[in-house]
Amino acid sequence: MNKVEVIHSPALLPLYDLKDKVVVVIDILRATTTMCVAFNTGVNKILPVASPDECFMFKEFDFIIAAERNAVRVPGFDMGNSPFEYENPLIAGKNIAFTTTNGTKAIKMAKAMNPHSILIGSFLNITALSKKIKESGRDLILLCSGWKDKYNLEDTLFAGAVIHKLAATYGMHDDAALSAYFLFEQHQDNLEALVRKSSHAERFTILHLQTDDVKYCLQQDTLSIVPEMEGEFLVNLGLKNEVLIMKF
Amino acid sequence: MNKVEVIHSPALLPLYDLKDKVVVVIDILRATTTMCVAFNTGVNKILPVASPDECFMFKEFDFIIAAERNAVRVPGFDMGNSPFEYENPLIAGKNIAFTTTNGTKAIKMAKAMNPHSILIGSFLNITALSKKIKESGRDLILLCSGWKDKYNLEDTLFAGAVIHKLAATYGMHDDAALSAYFLFEQHQDNLEALVRKSSHAERFTILHLQTDDVKYCLQQDTLSIVPEMEGEFLVNLGLKNEVLIMKF
Repeated sequence: MNKVEVIHSPALLPLYDLKDKVVVVIDILRATTTMCVAFNTGVNKILPVASPDECFMFKEFDFIIAAERNAVRVPGFDMGNSPFEYENPLIAGKNIAFTTTNGTKAIKMAKAMNPHSILIGSFLNITALSKKIKESGRDLILLCSGWKDKYNLEDTLFAGAVIHKLAATYGMHDDAALSAYFLFEQHQDNLEALVRKSSHAERFTILHLQTDDVKYCLQQDTLSIVPEMEGEFLVNLGLKNEVLIMKF
Repeated sequence: MNKVEVIHSPALLPLYDLKDKVVVVIDILRATTTMCVAFNTGVNKILPVASPDECFMFKEFDFIIAAERNAVRVPGFDMGNSPFEYENPLIAGKNIAFTTTNGTKAIKMAKAMNPHSILIGSFLNITALSKKIKESGRDLILLCSGWKDKYNLEDTLFAGAVIHKLAATYGMHDDAALSAYFLFEQHQDNLEALVRKSSHAERFTILHLQTDDVKYCLQQDTLSIVPEMEGEFLVNLGLKNEVLIMKF
């Protein structure tokens, strides 16, 4: 039986060994949800970047530049971090340089620790993701992006949902995995009520976001793609193959 | 209404502001439980020390030296970290230099961040502790010692129990507090079943401890004392007054 561990915050990454493991990066509200939507719309590559300043430098290289800080789009950038924006068919075939408060940082930190592979998780693609994890036959790290290195509810809830899906083939290896499992068990019949209580959902309410991003990000199995890292880029290997066939 | 935050690991302490707050250090299995028992037996002062080597240096100053690493007593020391050992009446009136894998480290890290006060929490003194917190009228940090900087179930469970006791006067200020609240809510009718699932209880089983420390550490309200930091020492201010009266 393979093992699954949960990391509640990127700040705790140095305590873990990622070698030969599959790492799923989780930022439910909203970066990893948004990335799944972007690839479903037909984006070619996403380059995770640490800071808005560094992200801006990719503009001259024909990237769409996208930056979010503190839940809002950074002024001067093409796009923010709402999944609704990434349903726009105009982004199909484009490359995006992307920086967010938590998610892209978690991806870059995980990448620096040389795991076997890095996958992008969201409720939208949870079944496709779980299938891909099982097929890997490797031990698993579920990495919650958190909020500025602090614990958050929605990422842990998703980690618990994945553990439930994998229960037949993955054993829980640490207390963090157990707590995620119990959190999902307790709230599975009403995820939205729990996530509305979270500090990040509250942040959205204060900002009066015009779209209901919380509800959007809790949709399950609307997508069958699983973005993953290839070198420095996030790609959708499944979709890329189709695109290649179309090109040649 | 005062605020309560939960910190799952000492490694996350630098993200928090402890100034003017009350900090409760939690290491249910077993350091903070054992400290409560020691003061109830009549220990005078406990000096938390970082490492066994440093702890050993206090032997010549008439301290009892106590050291635990990886759940067992360090060879050459007077005592380990089982609460049963600290019921021995021979330790009454003595001073103890104490180092453990997680609890004493958490205490020393919190101390270095200058909170208003540091209290020691366990299920044994939970009602007395909650009363003292309420009387402080200050914002609260519940600091879980974890296991080698990783999340653990039993400390979070206790944090949730304290939040339930304080619900009328303390509002949950972060997602970590919410998750602790929900964990206790879900398991309050059978704490032992949950804690037996934890990685630390499993560690005890592997070590074949002769005493049932898990059951002991989950007793509720057997003690009415609340150890707290005074300078570099842990003391029992309530008991100390009585001792002073007896001396003069």
